This record gives sequence, C-alpha cells and structure tokens, in this order.
Amino acid sequence: MARRRLVYEGKAKILYEGPEPETLIQYFKDDATAFNAEKKDVIEGKGVLNNRLSEYFMSGLNSIGVPTHFIKRLNMREQLIRAVEIIPLEVVVRNVAAGSLAKRLGMEEGTALPRPIVEFYYKDDALGDPLVTEEHIIAFGWASQQDMDDMVALALRVNDFMSGIMLAVGIRLVDFKIEIGRVFDGDFQRLIVADEISPDSCRLWDIESGEKLDKDVFRRDLGSLTDAYTEVARRLGVLPRTGAGQAGPKLVH
Amino acid sequence: MARRRLVYEGKAKILYEGPEPETLIQYFKDDATAFNAEKKDVIEGKGVLNNRLSEYFMSGLNSIGVPTHFIKRLNMREQLIRAVEIIPLEVVVRNVAAGSLAKRLGMEEGTALPRPIVEFYYKDDALGDPLVTEEHIIAFGWASQQDMDDMVALALRVNDFMSGIMLAVGIRLVDFKIEIGRVFDGDFQRLIVADEISPDSCRLWDIESGEKLDKDVFRRDLGSLTDAYTEVARRLGVLPRTGAGQAGPKLVH
Ligand SMILES: Nc1ncnc2c1ncn2[C@@H]1O[C@H](COP(=O)(O)OP(=O)(O)OP(=O)(O)O)[C@@H](O)[C@H]1O
Ligand SMILES: Nc1ncnc2c1ncn2[C@@H]1O[C@H](COP(=O)(O)OP(=O)(O)OP(=O)(O)O)[C@@H](O)[C@H]1O
Ligand SMILES: [Mg+2]
Ligand SMILES: [Mg+2]
Repeated sequence: MARRRLVYEGKAKILYEGPEPETLIQYFKDDATAFNAEKKDVIEGKGVLNNRLSEYFMSGLNSIGVPTHFIKRLNMREQLIRAVEIIPLEVVVRNVAAGSLAKRLGMEEGTALPRPIVEFYYKDDALGDPLVTEEHIIAFGWASQQDMDDMVALALRVNDFMSGIMLAVGIRLVDFKIEIGRVFDGDFQRLIVADEISPDSCRLWDIESGEKLDKDVFRRDLGSLTDAYTEVARRLGVLPRTGAGQAGPKLVH
Repeated sequence: MARRRLVYEGKAKILYEGPEPETLIQYFKDDATAFNAEKKDVIEGKGVLNNRLSEYFMSGLNSIGVPTHFIKRLNMREQLIRAVEIIPLEVVVRNVAAGSLAKRLGMEEGTALPRPIVEFYYKDDALGDPLVTEEHIIAFGWASQQDMDDMVALALRVNDFMSGIMLAVGIRLVDFKIEIGRVFDGDFQRLIVADEISPDSCRLWDIESGEKLDKDVFRRDLGSLTDAYTEVARRLGVLPRTGAGQAGPKLVH
C-alpha cells in the first residue's frame, strides 16, 4: 500500500489522508487507555474487533437514515470515512446509572434511569473531559442551539437503534458515547455521527448474568478484554474472517 | 423573646418557626465554612452584616417585582421570611470566569464571559454539590421544564438588578448563587428567591483595584472577612446601627 500522510494519531486510532478529498482512513490500534490515559495497555486484537464492530453499527445507522461518517471497511484494521469537523463534545446517552453518573449523583450502579439522559462532556484531555451544560456550550460557541437540538435528536436515535441491536443478542445497552461532526454541502451544514461505536465507547452488560462486555473489563481488571469484545462480535455474527471460516478468539493483526 | 421551635440549623443560618403560618425566622450565624465545610471559622459580625445585606438586596428585588421570601428584618441577626419548599438546586449566575468554572474549563480567572451563564448544582453536601444539567434535573424530577425556564428567568433578573447595584458602588458582580423555592397560592405554584443574597453567596470585585470583597477573602486567606463585608455594606449605606450612629467595623452581636 502506498505511503499515506498521517493526519492525527490518537490514543486508540490513527487518521490518514483518504484517497478522495473530504475522506480519511481510520486505523484502529490495539492500544487501550483509561482514566485519562493513566492506565494503558496493548490488547492484541482489540483494533480488529473495533474496526468490525464500528463498521457494523455505523453501516446499520446509515441504513436507517442516521447519517454517519462510515463509507466502507478497507481491511482488518482500517475503514474509509468521511472527514468531518469534529464538535469538541463527547455526547453520552445513559439508560442505566453507571460510571461517573452513579458516582457524581450518588446512585447505585445498575439503577434504571427514569428516561434516557443525554450528557455533553467538553473534549479536553488536560481538563479531564469535564461535564458541561447547554449554557457553557452555547456561551463558548462550541455548538449552536440548533446544533444542540440536532445532537440530542441524533444521540437518541442512535440509542434506540443500539438498544434494539443489543437487546436482540441478550445485552443491555447501559450507556454509550459518540462524537458528532459537521459536514458541509455548499453553504449547508449537516451533523453526522463520527469517531467510533464499539465496546470501547459503550457499556454493555449481559442481560442474564450482568457480565460486563465492554471497556470496564479493562478499566476494572475484570478479565480478558479480547474475550469480552469477541463475545459481542460473536453474538452479532460479525467475527472477522481470518482466511477460512470464522476466527476464534485468537485474532490475526 | 419567647422560645421558638427550631426548624433547621445549617452551616450559616438557623431557621425557627415564624409567628404566622407559612413564615419562618431566619437567624444569621457568624460561622463561615468553605470547601464543603472542610475549612471553618467564626467571623465576629458576619451574621449581622449578612442579615442587613440580604435584607437590602431582597427588599430591593421585591420592589422591582422579583418575588423573594423576605418579609421584614426583626433585629440585628434575624429576619422574617416566607416559608418555601426549597428546590434542591443551587442556581449560579456567572458574568466573569472565576472559581470552579475557571478551573473546570481551564479559563483564567477574570476573563469576561461572552454572556451570563446560568448553572445548576445539585444541593447535596455528601456529593459536593455536583454540577448538573437540565437533563438530570428533569429526569430525576428535581424541577420541571417550566420550573427550569422560570428559574433561569428569575436568576437573570436577579443578575441584572445586582449588577446594577454593584456597578453603582464600584463593584463588579462576578457571580452569585441563589436558592429558589416554591410557594403555593391554592393549587397554583410560584417560584420565589429564597435563602440569602450576601457576600457569602456572591463574588464581588472592586472595579478599580480588583480587590475581593466576598467570601473568597475567607476561602483564600486574603485578610479580614469582616472588613471586606463592612466595605460592601458601607458603600451601599446599609451599615447596621449599634445604638447611636453608624457602626464602625466592630459590630455588636
Ligand atoms: N470523521 C472524522 N473526521 C475527522 N476527525 C475524526 C473523525 N472521526 C473521528 N475523528 C477524530 O479522530 C480522532 C480519533 O482518534 P482517537 O479516538 O484515538 O483519539 P483520542 O486519543 O481519543 O483523542 P481525542 O480526545 O481527540 O478523541 C479523535 O480526535 C476524533 O475526534
Ligand atoms: N424561605 C425558606 N423556606 C425554607 N427553607 C429555606 C428558606 N430559605 C432558605 N432555606 C433553607 O434554610 C437553610 C439555611 O441554612 P444554611 O444556609 O446555613 O444551610 P447550609 O448549611 O448551607 O445547608 P444547605 O446545604 O441546606 O444550604 C438552607 O437549607 C436553605 O435551603
Ligand atoms: Mg477518542
Ligand atoms: Mg446554605
């Protein structure tokens, strides 16, 4: 493959210039980080799984008319995406209290929320991605009121779709985070789902056993992260092929 | 004075049953606390000053049609107030970045905000009064959407009035916190400003020198808190009388 210009290297992914204008290639690394990168490890096969799973969720969203950056998967670790102007907010939807919400508001993890709650966190590693309100977002110009309304609507559609997918395979969608970006059609701006949707960015609990099948396995040292993500991929029928047939938990990279 | 039933003793004030139904007597103590009561002291005369200053601001608000709980001052440390059902939120309005906003969002203290920002903090000492968003407030039923809109409108009117008062005496209103409560007229609910408005609940900077004339003097050990509050009271012409004439900085309690 020809050398491509590197656009950005993050903690979990690398972006390269794409083959067409307004496209990028997103490469999924095996690096796992938590607690604002205080905890780090390399988890063999994670990138391959997340590339496949993000393809699966994003192409599903595209198919129901929720616009995403996903164009097509290129290989085991790379996908072609539409370049966006990322809005500097992590958009979190929660169905069940867990993680920082449970801690901040003194709720027991696992308490069902009275309705889905949409939260915005300002993307700034140095500040620890602080929770922000509409007031901050609008006052500081990170997004307009119209953008906010569109983001909430997008996030809730993603929640409905992802909740359905997960329910169908015996998994409870506890919460997830998306990033949203702007694309321009002439003078016209639209918001689309970007970044990734994977067990790195969701909380997924087995409905029967409560077993965690997401990045909390890494954050809280609960076992093999690859096994957990492979289980999600297996249930969804999206295990990467490694030559002949379905791959087992051991993944080529 | 007859013995009265104690209703609540907080960190800075005591509430007693009032003489009429739906009234309370609010007693201003000299106790100062900061950082969720980790730092504590007794500041002689603070209660007397805050009783006077809260009277001044709340009666001013009543006079321009912003409803408050204030009925009348009873003596040096006590005022008669209307009993309300407190909404468990601290409503903060900020004109200039300072304190927790500056820290959370990595802004330099003193940066003028592009517009006033209204924030809500969930009143829970054990949780450290966490910042919350409309989503949390509505999902957990702490207030309705209508309440939220009314609270924002009230808070912004208080901001306009307090900004004007302060500007007139050479002080910059950096930010302040209010509490808001419900009163019932039959089936009808109204929201009114409650608790206190004083240098304990505002950030007040001298326009010329930048000198702090508020509780940050205590939080940050910047000198005499009584001197700072006395200076605010003096500029506003609301120094408490101690027998003959105006009191100096030494206050009877
Ligand atoms: N379609 C897109 N167009 C442009 N940038 C994108 C797109 N999708 C995702 N990104 C950005 O690409 C980067 C992905 O890298 P990665 O997730 O590893 O970053 P990170 O270390 O988490 O840091 P960040 O805080 O920037 O997310 C992120 O900065 C993300 O915002
Ligand atoms: N008009 C009112 N009717 C009923 N309660 C009131 C009214 N005004 C203020 N309060 C409540 O009275 C108490 C005042 O006491 P103080 O400010 O010392 O409490 P605190 O230690 O700060 O604790 P809190 O976290 O409850 O404010 C507060 O709980 C406040 O919410
Ligand atoms: Mg990222
Ligand atoms: Mg109080």
